Amino acid sequence: MRPSSSTWPEPAGQAPPAGPAPGLFDEILARGPVRAAVSDPQWLRHLLAVESALAAATAAHGLVPPAAAAAIQAACRQIELDPAELARAAAEPGNPVLPVVQALRSAVGPELAGYVHFGATSQDILDTAAMLVARDALRLGRAAVRDAAGAAAALARSHRDTPMAGRTLLQHALPVTFGLVAAGWLTGLDTAADELARAEAAAAVQLGGAAGTRHAYQPAGAEVAADLAAGLGLQAPVLPWHTDRTRIGLIAGALGTTAGAVGKVARDVSLLAGSDVAEVAEAAPGGSSAMPHKRNPVASVAALACAAQAPGLVSTLLGSMVQEHQRAAGAWHAEWRPLRELLVTVGSAAEWLRVCLTGLRADPAAMAANLDRLRATAGLTDPAAHLRAAGELVDRALTAHENRE
Amino acid sequence: MRPSSSTWPEPAGQAPPAGPAPGLFDEILARGPVRAAVSDPQWLRHLLAVESALAAATAAHGLVPPAAAAAIQAACRQIELDPAELARAAAEPGNPVLPVVQALRSAVGPELAGYVHFGATSQDILDTAAMLVARDALRLGRAAVRDAAGAAAALARSHRDTPMAGRTLLQHALPVTFGLVAAGWLTGLDTAADELARAEAAAAVQLGGAAGTRHAYQPAGAEVAADLAAGLGLQAPVLPWHTDRTRIGLIAGALGTTAGAVGKVARDVSLLAGSDVAEVAEAAPGGSSAMPHKRNPVASVAALACAAQAPGLVSTLLGSMVQEHQRAAGAWHAEWRPLRELLVTVGSAAEWLRVCLTGLRADPAAMAANLDRLRATAGLTDPAAHLRAAGELVDRALTAHENRE
Amino acid sequence: MRPSSSTWPEPAGQAPPAGPAPGLFDEILARGPVRAAVSDPQWLRHLLAVESALAAATAAHGLVPPAAAAAIQAACRQIELDPAELARAAAEPGNPVLPVVQALRSAVGPELAGYVHFGATSQDILDTAAMLVARDALRLGRAAVRDAAGAAAALARSHRDTPMAGRTLLQHALPVTFGLVAAGWLTGLDTAADELARAEAAAAVQLGGAAGTRHAYQPAGAEVAADLAAGLGLQAPVLPWHTDRTRIGLIAGALGTTAGAVGKVARDVSLLAGSDVAEVAEAAPGGSSAMPHKRNPVASVAALACAAQAPGLVSTLLGSMVQEHQRAAGAWHAEWRPLRELLVTVGSAAEWLRVCLTGLRADPAAMAANLDRLRATAGLTDPAAHLRAAGELVDRALTAHENRE
Amino acid sequence: MRPSSSTWPEPAGQAPPAGPAPGLFDEILARGPVRAAVSDPQWLRHLLAVESALAAATAAHGLVPPAAAAAIQAACRQIELDPAELARAAAEPGNPVLPVVQALRSAVGPELAGYVHFGATSQDILDTAAMLVARDALRLGRAAVRDAAGAAAALARSHRDTPMAGRTLLQHALPVTFGLVAAGWLTGLDTAADELARAEAAAAVQLGGAAGTRHAYQPAGAEVAADLAAGLGLQAPVLPWHTDRTRIGLIAGALGTTAGAVGKVARDVSLLAGSDVAEVAEAAPGGSSAMPHKRNPVASVAALACAAQAPGLVSTLLGSMVQEHQRAAGAWHAEWRPLRELLVTVGSAAEWLRVCLTGLRADPAAMAANLDRLRATAGLTDPAAHLRAAGELVDRALTAHENRE
Repeated sequence: MRPSSSTWPEPAGQAPPAGPAPGLFDEILARGPVRAAVSDPQWLRHLLAVESALAAATAAHGLVPPAAAAAIQAACRQIELDPAELARAAAEPGNPVLPVVQALRSAVGPELAGYVHFGATSQDILDTAAMLVARDALRLGRAAVRDAAGAAAALARSHRDTPMAGRTLLQHALPVTFGLVAAGWLTGLDTAADELARAEAAAAVQLGGAAGTRHAYQPAGAEVAADLAAGLGLQAPVLPWHTDRTRIGLIAGALGTTAGAVGKVARDVSLLAGSDVAEVAEAAPGGSSAMPHKRNPVASVAALACAAQAPGLVSTLLGSMVQEHQRAAGAWHAEWRPLRELLVTVGSAAEWLRVCLTGLRADPAAMAANLDRLRATAGLTDPAAHLRAAGELVDRALTAHENRE
Repeated sequence: MRPSSSTWPEPAGQAPPAGPAPGLFDEILARGPVRAAVSDPQWLRHLLAVESALAAATAAHGLVPPAAAAAIQAACRQIELDPAELARAAAEPGNPVLPVVQALRSAVGPELAGYVHFGATSQDILDTAAMLVARDALRLGRAAVRDAAGAAAALARSHRDTPMAGRTLLQHALPVTFGLVAAGWLTGLDTAADELARAEAAAAVQLGGAAGTRHAYQPAGAEVAADLAAGLGLQAPVLPWHTDRTRIGLIAGALGTTAGAVGKVARDVSLLAGSDVAEVAEAAPGGSSAMPHKRNPVASVAALACAAQAPGLVSTLLGSMVQEHQRAAGAWHAEWRPLRELLVTVGSAAEWLRVCLTGLRADPAAMAANLDRLRATAGLTDPAAHLRAAGELVDRALTAHENRE
Repeated sequence: MRPSSSTWPEPAGQAPPAGPAPGLFDEILARGPVRAAVSDPQWLRHLLAVESALAAATAAHGLVPPAAAAAIQAACRQIELDPAELARAAAEPGNPVLPVVQALRSAVGPELAGYVHFGATSQDILDTAAMLVARDALRLGRAAVRDAAGAAAALARSHRDTPMAGRTLLQHALPVTFGLVAAGWLTGLDTAADELARAEAAAAVQLGGAAGTRHAYQPAGAEVAADLAAGLGLQAPVLPWHTDRTRIGLIAGALGTTAGAVGKVARDVSLLAGSDVAEVAEAAPGGSSAMPHKRNPVASVAALACAAQAPGLVSTLLGSMVQEHQRAAGAWHAEWRPLRELLVTVGSAAEWLRVCLTGLRADPAAMAANLDRLRATAGLTDPAAHLRAAGELVDRALTAHENRE
Repeated sequence: MRPSSSTWPEPAGQAPPAGPAPGLFDEILARGPVRAAVSDPQWLRHLLAVESALAAATAAHGLVPPAAAAAIQAACRQIELDPAELARAAAEPGNPVLPVVQALRSAVGPELAGYVHFGATSQDILDTAAMLVARDALRLGRAAVRDAAGAAAALARSHRDTPMAGRTLLQHALPVTFGLVAAGWLTGLDTAADELARAEAAAAVQLGGAAGTRHAYQPAGAEVAADLAAGLGLQAPVLPWHTDRTRIGLIAGALGTTAGAVGKVARDVSLLAGSDVAEVAEAAPGGSSAMPHKRNPVASVAALACAAQAPGLVSTLLGSMVQEHQRAAGAWHAEWRPLRELLVTVGSAAEWLRVCLTGLRADPAAMAANLDRLRATAGLTDPAAHLRAAGELVDRALTAHENRE
């Protein structure tokens, strides 16, 4: 049975509704739809969605009366919570789930209060909501990466035969084509998209109860967990994973790899767009009031800035995997901000790269001029073999790209 | 000459005014006054304070007419800015300074507009504001560390001769005293407080203009910078440091060391407060609705959670020190969130440790009982020599602590 | 055609021959067969294996005469290189491949010298050798993780119904079973093994030539690369990946996740083996000359020490993914030591965990005594429901474990 | 009293004797004298030096007979230890000190054996030796940084008035001088040298005995520790610091900041030396057999590669500061490799930068040509004000540099 909450509060994976007003640096460092996807209101929606789906799943197995489940689900839909009040009430229990539960219990009245949050522990709800947040953010990040890959593919196609200087250790080396450069970007981004898809698929419900035995659902523990998973569009795990954080590690690794793939492309663009090379230009470079001649490649610079924040956050999440017994004394709480920051910064990096590559203008004449300097220095007479070889690699990369779609 | 803006908008280092409403996890992970100190409104106040102080400093050297400086300073005091609007306008230039400048220019009118932000570049203003944010947050963090150290000193004093089992690799080893344990906490926290003080003292103004030459202030560049520094209570650096980020590295290192010192104490408390040891109890342990018998050591757990986030953020800031030429293509922007996060998480860790150690209750009977088990296993007959030696170390640590105050 | 070098110098993935003498800390921190697998002699063997396989692959496509390939392959088998001399000759070109190539060219004589290293660049050879090193080390790490998982499965099976206190935030919570604890370890380790297998499968040859076009192999570039891959048991990538380091990121992520999974188990064991809990004991605890009563859980402590080093190394590798143009100015070289360190530390962590869990002794009486204390405090009357629920989860985890083998 | 071991085995801080043969990547990534300073033989010398100094210090306070101390000191000088055998014997106790102690006890015979390692625990000896290793490596690193700073100062002086294009976000901005660029490098390196000096000064002896009470030295614990410190040229700490790792944090922070300062300079050089800019050239660029026209800036590239490895290692050391009770269950052991790696990689980065800046050739004509392009684009008519301002800043930086020497 598929619980009725499955498409509530919104179809999974769609862009979230517009979030709160941006913070001072947010249009640069928390860019695009991912900001709303990890915002407090969205967290709150997900927390309520989990409680709602739990009511449905427990009712489906006779643990909670249908009327109680219906009342809880209605309360989850209708309740108005003050986030700041919740936040303040979260300190003493150490997480914001308890005040949500208390509010729902008040809402359904004393007779049904016992059916709210039935058999669950706070970590069940928070981890599951975190997985919904992560799933949405990963999906948005992947969409941006795919768009960026599409733009790279278009560049690879149109510049398949545009010669330019290959550069190793920032020195001119041998001729390549801009198409091959873009094809290299493409394969990295395709890999990143695959990693993000895999991370998204690893998102699973958490349901274990206070010590992880699911004892309150006996003998239907596995079934309740499976229904909860189905209701929310998440995986049903083998066991509760309160202190087995391998899926957090896996998600962190995918995001870290994506940041690296994005950062590589953005570094190339920022260098190629630099005044000393001037072989590409972003579609909408930023200006400078003090220096009207400047054409700042803001999108690649911002993408680099966002990508650079990922490795440290990944290391925090990996380091926090060492969690004691049935619930960690600190390492669980230590995940919350870094996970959110990591989703935001990688999602933003991908969004900026999408902007950067969409409409990126290459300047074949500038490429040719720079290449001529190389040819003079290196004594090359004919780059034709290089260009032919590069063209074949471009074709190969495009074929691989197209076959995966 | 000390510019008139020196105590504006508030005396340096006092607790900032109450900030915005807490986010969902903020009462746990962004705890205490540091949250307001790094908040957007406070950033905005500091940005305006820098522009105001710059007007005063340039006027003092005849670069800006006194009337223009007065008008700018008045505008800085009176202007009402919409943070979200600023945020949106920050994306294109890549930072929120330009819209602030534009608003100030509008406020003072077209004739004086040219004197606003005189000779400065956006990074001058943002870096200087960041130093003000850092200084305030470091000061608050240090106050919390000092309070925690004071509580540790009190524990060391009162339990100078309270025997307990020393534990190595979590195994009972030889007898120590709880006083010595607390004295060890104390010396670590004293070192951390010294590191934070040193970091605070390193906070310096940034003033270089677009390419870092201070050419607009010629021949008074050094003097304008010195006055700006004096006006804001910051150091005057040898050179503009747009891409010399050693002071960011130094601040990051001090915060990382503090996190480690705090985390060590919190780990000890969480273990000693555990049911299997039960030798200490926090003054206000958290409850659990599902398990009324629990006494969660929430303060030490939260301190651990906050401290655990620091090392990754430190690594991001250190990695971002590699900044190109006269302004980095990404690495500068990459500092903003991690610096804020690091200040918040270490400040919060210190705040939680202050809570944890204030009123921490030791249970000498439980310590004695656990020690008896050790003595039986280890065949110790007389711990007196250990206790005497421990007592002398406690005295030594307390003396060192008192001498530094 | 499968080149004849395919099983040279040893069947892929077997334990490497005994390596050099251990360094001072190596039996603790570079434990088990992984140390030899990443040692200099093994690197050297792999470098030669790549040159040999390249000779075969180029000969198969008529780029190199069969006799030249045979001579090169013979030289690769027979050559005696002085590692220290190679090391010294590596500084000027920036990597140790050039002196290897020069030695091979000397060995085959001036007439055939031009066929050595045909069309390749140093990074082709070094990256491919790095993949062989990584593949071997990943395989060894996975074997240790699987053994540890097997031991966890055995514990889960034999202690399916052994009650113990569940602990959250180090406080006694509700009853669980030791079987369920071990089952949780098992699922984490199974996930880690899957991640390592996936990382191993991602290992690919590198072949691009100086600027990544494979121009020297025209029009057979893809075929030469495929043959090289087949000859070495590695994947053939879509494109040369000189500066697309997503597979390094993927490998780093898998190793980081494994470290977390191992560290979680080791933390639990170290706590459960602590004098204050004393519910488990390692099969061969370490002694202390000064304190003969001690039973140090050296394997879990060493596993923790090794696992703790992974997150920082992962972050270095992820940060190094931002590589410029056709060959990075520093970020490529920055991978070498961290990759080796990461393989070693995670492999060692896994090896220590294998030791730790093999023969781990649980003490049901001690578990029962500690649980009794919980029951008294918590007022629990009957843990039966908890135990039944735990048992079902154990069965579920064991089934999942068995199904994957 | 200053124990007689004070200048043994060599005057503190001198370059260590030539170490073992370099590993495959060591002439690139473990460059210069720091490699020997952190090598196993040097560790072993320091371990013996500590045992020798301890014998002297305990004898000075009547705890050990003078004859016994003399015999121990002689044994420390004369003993021949097999590092590999020590390494193997280190696994069971979890560190290499015990086998050293056993060897010394054998050497002095059964009657004096009890005076060897008197009252100490393994961590006392290992931590103190680690401080000696760190002190030496920090000193070497600082020497290299100072040399690099000296070279930067020379460049600043000779190119005080050499105009070049300032670059922000890799775009040409306004004119600067190469002297000012070099002066910026100088101030960063001076700060790094100060940080390293401070870290070196923080190196302290460890002496606490098994549980940190120094009970075996009663009532002369503080005096023995002070004499040990004097004998080895280290600080005497307030308390034993077995699990107060703030000085490790402080050392790590200083090294991380140094890496950033070095990396910044190396990044600038690698970009300025790139074919597209070509404004500077290293004195001894690397060649490429395949591409004879290349002039690889190997020193700056290697410096970048070494510097990039620091932030992750710093984060590992900071994360390992959370150490349990009187001796950590894993976090202490987790420091050993990262501390060594960090000392090596930062020392190597500094060494490469010394090479890079010594004899760095600037090309004023190329700078002028690139600047002309800027002037054309930007419509600048006269860069004189910029150059004058830059010159004053150069003077200021040089004065500050000279005043500190």
